[in-house]
Order: sequence, then structure tokens, then C-alpha cells
Amino acid sequence: MDINKIEHIGIAVKSIEESLKYYEGVLGLKCYAIEEVTEQKVKTAFLKIGDVKLELLEATSDESAIAKFIEKRGEGVQHIAFAVNGIENNLAEAKEKGIRLIDETPRNGAEGLNIAFLHPKFTGGVLTEFCEK
Amino acid sequence: MDINKIEHIGIAVKSIEESLKYYEGVLGLKCYAIEEVTEQKVKTAFLKIGDVKLELLEATSDESAIAKFIEKRGEGVQHIAFAVNGIENNLAEAKEKGIRLIDETPRNGAEGLNIAFLHPKFTGGVLTEFCEK
Repeated sequence: MDINKIEHIGIAVKSIEESLKYYEGVLGLKCYAIEEVTEQKVKTAFLKIGDVKLELLEATSDESAIAKFIEKRGEGVQHIAFAVNGIENNLAEAKEKGIRLIDETPRNGAEGLNIAFLHPKFTGGVLTEFCEK
Repeated sequence: MDINKIEHIGIAVKSIEESLKYYEGVLGLKCYAIEEVTEQKVKTAFLKIGDVKLELLEATSDESAIAKFIEKRGEGVQHIAFAVNGIENNLAEAKEKGIRLIDETPRNGAEGLNIAFLHPKFTGGVLTEFCEK
């Protein structure tokens, strides 16, 4: 496994606009990009803190995984993303070690990254993303 | 507000021993310390990744906040901790801006840090910790 660092923490929010009142207005962080990922039915907002990003995720449809997450658990941390070298090799290794993959092969995510998710039932309840530039 | 970086991500686990099979055995991270915080009724295990830590939290009593979290939501991310400069000033500023504080004054946390929590109802569902050396 070749993991560099935590690339971002994904946080499910009802409204990016409302959430920024806390992240920018209280914590003093700065949102540097807002992007819609139509495939995922989400709008994302990115803030940087040190060399990690916070990714605020707002559903653009009731069928979005984010809408379902919020319905079930409320707003909060939805996933952790690790920056990896060689995403395909890392996925193969995780699978070989018994981790169920949500994405068998990488797909396009926000910020032009190749991303793939591991199933939270196999990662101690933490929805886990691998991503690579 | 004077926030440096994400100090750690706190993850509620049923068993540190079991969880390390994933974090060490699959992800290849290394646990460098296990510590009991009796005041919090938890055992903690720390792993480093880049300049961020993962803090695995196992309840040592049914009355621990971690036991209650797992009972309600299952294992998963329980809090995010930000390293701040001047924890008291940062707490005062958060309070002034309408954030309810769980800890009005800092107390002792794992690794000898001064820590204080902000109420997740006021931080978009993310239990938030400030900490300082």
C-alpha cells in the first residue's frame, strides 16, 4: 500500500452556503472552489487547512448518496480520502486483503482526481476513498 | 481565529486491536502509541499519516461517550481536532460568534495536549476539538 497523506475529509452538509458561515465566518478558513459533480449528484466546496482539504458535500438530488446519508445520520463527516500513489495497485492490494471495493476501477471525482471508494463495512465504519492526480 | 492544521481525526472503534488489522495490516500505517485517558473512559491508539494523526478511540466503560456514539451510530469518525494557537482566545471567539462550547475552559487530553470541544449542533454535525500543546 502506498499512501501519502490525507487528501481531504468529506463532510455532508444540507447547504454549502449555510455551512460556510461556520467554516469561513467562525473558523476563518477560506473556500477556494465550488464545483458540481453531476455524476455524484453533489455540489462540493473546498477549503484548505494545512495540507489537507475539507470537502463540503451538498446533495443536488434526493437520490444522491449525500441526501441519503443526511436523512439517516444528519450532517457530519461522510468520508476520508487518502492520496495514494498507483491507485489501481492499492485497490488490488486492498481487495486481496479482503476489503470490499465500491469501485473496482477508478472513476472521475472532483478536482480532476481519479477516485475509488472502499466499503465502510470493511473499513471500521469509515467510508474510505483513495484518490490520485 | 488562529488555526494551524488538522491535528487528528478521532475514530470510534469497538476494538483497537481489531481496527489495527485494517489500519496497519491493510493501509500499512503504523500505530506509534496507545494511551488510556481515564477521565474520558477511553483507550486511544495513534497512527500518523503525513502531518495528521488518526486517533482510534475504544471505550473502557459503557458510560464513555465513545460507547454511546457506537451504540447510536456504529463505528466511524467521531470528531475532528484542529491545532490552534491560543486555545482560550479561540474558544472565546467561537463563543462570541454563537458556537456553544462543550468545554468552557481547556482540559487535559491524550498526548499531553490542552483540549476543548465545540458542540456539534453548532458546527454542522461535526464534533470539533481545539487542541494546543
